[in-house]
Amino acid sequence: MRDVAVIGVGMTKWGELWEKSLRSIFVESALLAIQDAGVEKIDSMVVGCMSSGLFIGQEHLASLLSDSLARNPVPATRVESACSSGGLALRQGFIEVASGLSDVVLVGGVEKMTDVTGSEATYALGTAADQEYEGYHGLTFPGLYAMMAVAHMNRYGTTRDQLSMVAVKNHDNGSKNPLAQFPSRISVEAVNNSVQVADPLRILDCSPITDGAAAVILCPADMAAKMKKPVIRITGTGHASDTIALSSRKDITWLESTALAARKALAMAGRKIEDIHLFEVHDCFTIAEIMITEALGLAERGRGGRAVEEGLTSIKGKHPVNPSGGLKAKGHPVGATGVAQAVEVVKQLRGEAGDRQIKGARCGLTQNMGGTGGSALVHVFERE
Amino acid sequence: MRDVAVIGVGMTKWGELWEKSLRSIFVESALLAIQDAGVEKIDSMVVGCMSSGLFIGQEHLASLLSDSLARNPVPATRVESACSSGGLALRQGFIEVASGLSDVVLVGGVEKMTDVTGSEATYALGTAADQEYEGYHGLTFPGLYAMMAVAHMNRYGTTRDQLSMVAVKNHDNGSKNPLAQFPSRISVEAVNNSVQVADPLRILDCSPITDGAAAVILCPADMAAKMKKPVIRITGTGHASDTIALSSRKDITWLESTALAARKALAMAGRKIEDIHLFEVHDCFTIAEIMITEALGLAERGRGGRAVEEGLTSIKGKHPVNPSGGLKAKGHPVGATGVAQAVEVVKQLRGEAGDRQIKGARCGLTQNMGGTGGSALVHVFERE
Repeated sequence: MRDVAVIGVGMTKWGELWEKSLRSIFVESALLAIQDAGVEKIDSMVVGCMSSGLFIGQEHLASLLSDSLARNPVPATRVESACSSGGLALRQGFIEVASGLSDVVLVGGVEKMTDVTGSEATYALGTAADQEYEGYHGLTFPGLYAMMAVAHMNRYGTTRDQLSMVAVKNHDNGSKNPLAQFPSRISVEAVNNSVQVADPLRILDCSPITDGAAAVILCPADMAAKMKKPVIRITGTGHASDTIALSSRKDITWLESTALAARKALAMAGRKIEDIHLFEVHDCFTIAEIMITEALGLAERGRGGRAVEEGLTSIKGKHPVNPSGGLKAKGHPVGATGVAQAVEVVKQLRGEAGDRQIKGARCGLTQNMGGTGGSALVHVFERE
Repeated sequence: MRDVAVIGVGMTKWGELWEKSLRSIFVESALLAIQDAGVEKIDSMVVGCMSSGLFIGQEHLASLLSDSLARNPVPATRVESACSSGGLALRQGFIEVASGLSDVVLVGGVEKMTDVTGSEATYALGTAADQEYEGYHGLTFPGLYAMMAVAHMNRYGTTRDQLSMVAVKNHDNGSKNPLAQFPSRISVEAVNNSVQVADPLRILDCSPITDGAAAVILCPADMAAKMKKPVIRITGTGHASDTIALSSRKDITWLESTALAARKALAMAGRKIEDIHLFEVHDCFTIAEIMITEALGLAERGRGGRAVEEGLTSIKGKHPVNPSGGLKAKGHPVGATGVAQAVEVVKQLRGEAGDRQIKGARCGLTQNMGGTGGSALVHVFERE
């Protein structure tokens, strides 16, 4: 397999973009990435999107977007793995370049979520759960993660304040990210006292509904070496599935797919978790980030709550997690999230992350997951 | 890139399978393919499905199916390209094996279409068109293909009887396929006099709504050589996009994406179209097969109607097209079709196609497309 590098990144401001369509937000980000890479020609496109069918009544999405981008007749592939669709797109693009079949591949992620009502959005997101065993019996995602939170609190003593500290940290980081949907600081009290969604989760424990897109350009590492920008290689990719229904899991306080995907990606990169300087992870709910911290091995099992409380995962801590603001503050257009994580890591490794720059960062990791962990994608990025 | 072979195929009877769920029909086909391949372990899964979101309210599909197949935690990827989702899954599986990342990859395609009402199915299928420029203004797929047919008839003199002859030929072939949804012979008169859907297309010009799945197992060709079955290699893959909206096309009587994908696949295989012994193509409507015949170069531009009339594409003709019965008789579970085409070609090249066997076939081609040709996938298969 050939070595693969990221040579361009693009992302625009996320939020409730009622005046823009899915294709326009995708094209904006894709054009930024193409401009950043300084390439004329792309050989192929891979697009991650969870449910354009339910959100905007459109499938056949990748061809539609290659057309919107005036890139027909390039091969255009859409992949779906619920909220990890973006990370999966990155992996497919990586494999395509690594295989030698294509040189320059545009990897994009997109979701347009605010053109439907709240209950329609809840239904669409619910299709990431096992509908026959969960959704059709009334479970929604806040409810599923609430069960995971209750179990984690009961077993390990994780506290309500620790959940809130995840949100506070990520909003602190997000306040320095001009592209974030909610670039505002919040307090532990504000989270604790925000409206309850599914006990113990409050509204400020939850990532928002967002319209947004993100894009990166991949090419062989030897081609990237001839360009002007710092070369950021993807040195590891890991992908794993798990049961979708929580009821089938051995342990609902543990994210096995994330642990496995991370182990594979790190082994491929020849790295240990201690070698990584920053992490962009899938904090769809505050409890998720706590569990991911454990699955990645940044904290011992059950100690993810303490890790955030002790500042281990803050931007100035030993293991900075979600310097971008994470899903919580940056927003969570589900199909775009995994690609946006790569955008942030590349900016950090290039030293282009502005006020939230982690000094001297040369190695970063993204962790993106679908549903309650039914799928997980982990990638390792390194600056040469 | 490594050479890639198909070592297992699986498919069950297609039809209106009201007593079965999507996951059960997928698992049945996947288990048959695994059994046929004689492998214990699979490294990865790729699933093609167009719109499980709109048809059954379920996304996160690949992880769900790896779970249903008891294959967690294998990496599980779902791809979508409307009605060419199955062909796209085959291509992604091919790239993954060719890259060296995985050895044994299960490629499946599935669609469960009969659990919704007719108007809901029409809406879901309409998401393969450009909704903002076509669907939301009232166009449905029979309407789109009817416009293509009218243009083809006006420009080239293609006749109503020639359209019917495509359906008659494919039902003749399908009558010999026990897995076909409609394994029954029909006449030109029956097609001509069947109920009109969108002038000039009659109901018997249209492929049906179908529940079904299909699966193949891929591995490196050198691994396949050690097994007992004839080695069927995938020697070429081609993929192209085109505008989704017909209004943006230079010529609505010509399928440019199919022509391009075929050129790429044949060049990769080092073959000319005359080297191919059988073709499985995307006859979603009778006019589609006529246009595909031209785009592949089996007939001159405008002569696709005459080709079927003169018997060129019949099972005993010079260029047998759709020996399986095609989408018309075999059925068209949209995400499964592209994989089922591969199943048929492998059976033919192995000499396992029963009453519809094309004697001495050693080289076959599949052509799968999305929408009115907004995407196209072509693969070349050869028996060593």
